[in-house]
Amino acid sequence: MEAYLTPEEVRCYTRGLPEMKRLVLDPVELSDLELLANGAFSPLQGFMRSKDYFSVLENDRLAAGWVWTIPITLSIPVEMCGNYREGETVALVSADGGLKGILYVEEIYHRNREREALQVYGTLDRKHPGVRYLMSKGEVLLGGKIKAAADGFSREFAEYRLSPRELRRIFAEKGWKSVVAFQTRNPIHRAHEYLQKVALEIVDALLIHPLVGFTKPGDVPSDVRMACYREIIAGYFPADRVILAAFPAAMRYAGPKEAVFHAIVRKNYGCTHFIVGRDHAGVGHYYGTYDAQNIFDNFSAEEIGITILKFENTFYCKRCGNMASAKTCPHGAEDRLLLSGTKVREMLQAGQDLPEEFTRPEVARILKAYYTETAGVCP
Amino acid sequence: MEAYLTPEEVRCYTRGLPEMKRLVLDPVELSDLELLANGAFSPLQGFMRSKDYFSVLENDRLAAGWVWTIPITLSIPVEMCGNYREGETVALVSADGGLKGILYVEEIYHRNREREALQVYGTLDRKHPGVRYLMSKGEVLLGGKIKAAADGFSREFAEYRLSPRELRRIFAEKGWKSVVAFQTRNPIHRAHEYLQKVALEIVDALLIHPLVGFTKPGDVPSDVRMACYREIIAGYFPADRVILAAFPAAMRYAGPKEAVFHAIVRKNYGCTHFIVGRDHAGVGHYYGTYDAQNIFDNFSAEEIGITILKFENTFYCKRCGNMASAKTCPHGAEDRLLLSGTKVREMLQAGQDLPEEFTRPEVARILKAYYTETAGVCP
Repeated sequence: MEAYLTPEEVRCYTRGLPEMKRLVLDPVELSDLELLANGAFSPLQGFMRSKDYFSVLENDRLAAGWVWTIPITLSIPVEMCGNYREGETVALVSADGGLKGILYVEEIYHRNREREALQVYGTLDRKHPGVRYLMSKGEVLLGGKIKAAADGFSREFAEYRLSPRELRRIFAEKGWKSVVAFQTRNPIHRAHEYLQKVALEIVDALLIHPLVGFTKPGDVPSDVRMACYREIIAGYFPADRVILAAFPAAMRYAGPKEAVFHAIVRKNYGCTHFIVGRDHAGVGHYYGTYDAQNIFDNFSAEEIGITILKFENTFYCKRCGNMASAKTCPHGAEDRLLLSGTKVREMLQAGQDLPEEFTRPEVARILKAYYTETAGVCP
Repeated sequence: MEAYLTPEEVRCYTRGLPEMKRLVLDPVELSDLELLANGAFSPLQGFMRSKDYFSVLENDRLAAGWVWTIPITLSIPVEMCGNYREGETVALVSADGGLKGILYVEEIYHRNREREALQVYGTLDRKHPGVRYLMSKGEVLLGGKIKAAADGFSREFAEYRLSPRELRRIFAEKGWKSVVAFQTRNPIHRAHEYLQKVALEIVDALLIHPLVGFTKPGDVPSDVRMACYREIIAGYFPADRVILAAFPAAMRYAGPKEAVFHAIVRKNYGCTHFIVGRDHAGVGHYYGTYDAQNIFDNFSAEEIGITILKFENTFYCKRCGNMASAKTCPHGAEDRLLLSGTKVREMLQAGQDLPEEFTRPEVARILKAYYTETAGVCP
C-alpha cells in the first residue's frame, strides 16, 4: 500500500514548513521512508511503534504476527526528547531542508540499543558497521504512520528505481508467474551469474535487484555497479526474461536477520523466489557461512511466503569445464578457480585482467577502470 | 506397501503349479508386477479393475480420486476368456514357466483398446510403439490384487534395482530432505548433466533413475547405458549427493500421460522433485514439445505431491562459455552446439569422437564402442 502526500498536501506543507516541527533524516532513514511509502515494507505503514519494535527484537515478528526481522526506526537524541509530542505532525526533511514527507507522531519511546545490537546484529562490537551506525543514533524513537513526497527521493538511476507496484505491473504484463530476485551489493561475477541462471532455469524470469542505498566504505559504489550490471545483462542475459531494478534500501550488514528482511521485501515487490547464497548480507566474520540460510528454518514456508533458493559456494571448475558448486562438482581445489575478494581487488588495482572464467571481460574492464582511476583507494 | 508371497507360499504355489490356472506374463506385465509388488505403483495393489481402468482413461485419476494416467493391466485374448473365473487365484508365470506371483481374480472385463490408445497415447497410429503393443494385446482384462515372488524378478543390475523402501531408507540415512529424480532411457550427455546439476543446486540430492524395463528397438540398451551412467557419475558427480538406481518399468512412450505417471511413481520412491524436460517420454512427432510439461497444469500441486522442475532445451554455448538453455542464453544458433540424435548416432557409427562440450569423453567412448562393434545396426 502506497502512502504519498497529494500534490496539494506537498504544496501546503512546503509553505508551512518554517512553522512546523522538523526532523532531519539521515540517508538510512530516507531510504526507509522511501520504502515505507512505496509499499516495499508492507505491512508497515510508518516507523515502528514500541509494540512492533520490541516484538521484532524478541520474536522476529511484528506484534500482529507477520515475520519481520529488522527494526525500521526514526530516532532522536534523548536531549531532543522534549521537542516532540505525541499527536503532532512532524515534517521529515533532508539535510538540505527539502520536504521528504511527514510523520504522524503516535508514540515517543525509549529503544534498547544494546538489546537491538545483540538481537539484530548478534554482536556489540562497534567495528560492525550496523552496530556502529546504531550506536551513533539516538536512544529515543518516534513511532507512527508516514506519508512521503512522491518526488522527494533520489533520482539516481531513476529509470531503474521501480516501485513494488511498477514491478508487479511489469511482471503481470509479461505474463511471468514466477520471478526470482537476486539481491546484491557487489558486481556480478561469473559465480553470481551462475546462481542467477540456475534459478532462472526453474522460474519464468529474474529480477536483478541491487541495493543502491547506503553501503559501507569499501563496497563498490552503486554507479560503478550499475554500469557493470547493464553490461553483463546486455552481453549474457536474455532480454525477455531479466529485469534490472534498483533497490533503494540501506545496507544493514545484519546477515541472517537481513536475509529474512530482504526476502520478505522482495515478496512485496511481487517476486516468488529469492536467492540466498553463503553469508548473505554478512560482513567480516560475524556470522556463520550458513546462518543466513538456516534462519529460514525458524519460519514456515507459508509465513515467509517466498520460496528461498539456497546456494553453495560456486566457482569455475577446469575438469567440469563449467561453473559448478561444492554440491555439484566432485573435483578438488586444484581444479577450481577461486579468488578472494581481496585478491580480486589487488589484481584490479594492479591493472591486471581477471580470468574470463571468473568475471566477464566487459565487467572486469569497468572494475579495472574504477580501481585504477581512483588509484585503488577505498572511499 | 509391498505385496510379496512368503517363502512358504512360494514353495506351496510352486509345488501346486502344475494343477493351477496359469497366465504367462510378457516383459511389460512382468515389469508391472514387480512395481506393483514393491510399492512403486502405490496406491495400486494389483492389476486394475474396470472402475479404475475407465476412470484413468476418462479422468486421469483412479476411481478413488488419486491422479493416475497409465492403465496397469493384465490382458488375455477374448478366446481365452472362458479359461478364467472371477474369484479364482491364478499363477503368474514367465515365458520359461517360473512362478512370478499370483493374481486374485476379482474381475474379468472388456477393455476398450481404441479409447485407450486415443486417451493414453493420443493416437491410433500403429507405428506408435505404445499403440502397437496395446493392439497386440488381448481385449479382456483380469483385474485384482497380486502378490509376487520376491526372488522372481530379473537380477540384471541387481545392486541398482532398489525398491521404494530401500531408496527411502537410504535417503533417510543420508539425511536428505529433498531429492530430485531424473528419469532417462538415454545415455547422459552434457545437456542432461546440466539439467541434473541445476536441479541438484537447489535440493539435497539427485537420484539418477534410468528405466531398464522394455524399450523399443533403436533405443540404447540398458546395459550400455548403465555403463555410461557409472562412468559419468564416477568422473563428474559428487558421490555423496548422487544415487544411481535402476527403474525396472517398461517404457510406454505415452509422452504427457507417462510424464505424470513417472512423476507420481518417483514420489513413491521418496523423491521430492522430478525433472521434466522437453518431449518427456515422447517418440516421433506424436506430442508437442511442451505437452509433457503443460499437462501438470491440469492438477494441483497437492495432488501431484512432487515438485515438477520443467526445463527448456539445453546446449553448450560458445559465447556463454557454459551450458545453458534457451531461457538463460541470449545468443544465436551459430554459437550453440546442437546435435540431433540422428547426427550423434551417425558420428558414433562412423567411429567419430563427439565434441567434449556435447558428451563427456568417457561416455562417448562407450557409445562409440557400442555403435561400431554392433556395426551400427539397431537391434
